[in-house]
Amino acid sequence: MFERVALVGIGLIGSSLARVMREQGLAGHIAIATRSEPTLARALELGLGDSYTTDAAEAVRDADLVIVAVPVGASGAIAEQIAPALKPGAIVTDVGSTKRSVVSQMAPHIPAGVHFIPGHPIAGTEHSGPDAGFADLFEGRWCILTPVPGTDEAAIGRLARFWEACGSKVDTMDPEHHDMVLAIVSHLPHIIAYNIVGTADDLETVTKSEVIKYSASGFRDFTRLAASDPTMWRDVCLHNKDAILEMLARFSEDLTALRRAIRWGDGDALFDLFTRTRAVRRSIIEAGQEVDLPDFGRHVATHPEQE
Amino acid sequence: MFERVALVGIGLIGSSLARVMREQGLAGHIAIATRSEPTLARALELGLGDSYTTDAAEAVRDADLVIVAVPVGASGAIAEQIAPALKPGAIVTDVGSTKRSVVSQMAPHIPAGVHFIPGHPIAGTEHSGPDAGFADLFEGRWCILTPVPGTDEAAIGRLARFWEACGSKVDTMDPEHHDMVLAIVSHLPHIIAYNIVGTADDLETVTKSEVIKYSASGFRDFTRLAASDPTMWRDVCLHNKDAILEMLARFSEDLTALRRAIRWGDGDALFDLFTRTRAVRRSIIEAGQEVDLPDFGRHVATHPEQE
Repeated sequence: MFERVALVGIGLIGSSLARVMREQGLAGHIAIATRSEPTLARALELGLGDSYTTDAAEAVRDADLVIVAVPVGASGAIAEQIAPALKPGAIVTDVGSTKRSVVSQMAPHIPAGVHFIPGHPIAGTEHSGPDAGFADLFEGRWCILTPVPGTDEAAIGRLARFWEACGSKVDTMDPEHHDMVLAIVSHLPHIIAYNIVGTADDLETVTKSEVIKYSASGFRDFTRLAASDPTMWRDVCLHNKDAILEMLARFSEDLTALRRAIRWGDGDALFDLFTRTRAVRRSIIEAGQEVDLPDFGRHVATHPEQE
Repeated sequence: MFERVALVGIGLIGSSLARVMREQGLAGHIAIATRSEPTLARALELGLGDSYTTDAAEAVRDADLVIVAVPVGASGAIAEQIAPALKPGAIVTDVGSTKRSVVSQMAPHIPAGVHFIPGHPIAGTEHSGPDAGFADLFEGRWCILTPVPGTDEAAIGRLARFWEACGSKVDTMDPEHHDMVLAIVSHLPHIIAYNIVGTADDLETVTKSEVIKYSASGFRDFTRLAASDPTMWRDVCLHNKDAILEMLARFSEDLTALRRAIRWGDGDALFDLFTRTRAVRRSIIEAGQEVDLPDFGRHVATHPEQE
């Protein structure tokens, strides 16, 4: 599909892409770049690519497709570094969780004749690093492309077909809308999860060992998102501030109303909310975006012999 | 272990108890009572017990162990109804998620000579009803007993051994402390999950179909708790109000500080919180209260052939 693909960054997303490209034969040569020597050595040990370098500019030289897979706060520096080495006609994309900021950081550096098409695969786990990736991470998940107006349609089509070959379904939208959508479906849930785990960790009246022992009653669910990569999530908060603050304000307003219903014993208001939310999960399962098993399939995953 | 056990309520918890009692041979006779005719008919179809009735008093007659497994708001009415039929020396327990309220609702009705020992198995899924139960729901989970001072030690020991035979580990604590612990590990997470799903459902700028399509980026995790039984959770909110409002106040204070850090771009404060919370999940996995797999084992549950 592409002669030479450069992966700048080889964490969960980068290493999953390396694996699926290999499995599906999507790249003649996979060039891997990361700033970190130990991470690069690990990528080499895992055999994720065909060449390895700590110099992003070297990796992107002659590449037909360049995928920048680093925390969004580093996008601008990477773009500046690779710009002089980019091949005319190459496609440059990224996988960052915020898009307005990535566009403003990267676009000014991209030379004319190179197709810059920001992207965001909606996939991941709470683990990070080159060991965390797996080939079917993108299977059945959406990848959102946010091309700026005037982008070459053929290049967008090529990139869309690449993601489809990785197992994704592809949508396009403008960066502003992307950032608003992701603020509610991803950024707010992560921030709320981090916050509740922090609140529990700070209590004086309940011991940490009690929080851990009895966590299967609900709390443990939140610890998954709250175990996500701190650098990535710090950058998301700093780079999608407006949309996140808007969603946090709405969440807090709604929570104040809910607190009031609890304080005043308004059972009907509680019952109505708790009923309305139940339908949302069913829709997510029907859309193939969640396992159709109780408890996220935890029981099946740990008792496969019983199924 | 017991000649005759009466289950009053045959939802997720009641039907799981019926299954594990049968599997482990813990009861000579399992008497099932539920107010709902269709639920009772379903329990009969599933063969969960040895006798079936819509009259709780009839089920508890001659029972050595009575387990009340209904939403906590119904505890008082059930206690009043079964009290005249209870056998001297019988143990009466419950499985409710709040304990102070259950004690104050049930204890006044329990006759002298009957051992009332409130309990709470920390186990469940988001599904409800007699079909949702399974025999190893309690395996490796904690069950908390909250006996009032002066309760017969031998009866407490018998009940503890019963829960151990169901697969549980058993702790005892006073009802007030139970309610404070559960407010943080269970009630707050559920309320926050209901709230965030409600907030997302109300947005004008992001469509419901977008929320559903991109939910794998975090949001879907919250929809599991928010799909829990509305009646059960309305009752929890009404019956553990003080501890829940205290935890909601702490959560909201912490969230205000986090919003402020986002607004002012305090990356260090964000990074510190996001790092501190990561360790909590590791402790929960080490304590055997969470699957040691990324993404709750969703990938393993749906791709067992790859493991």
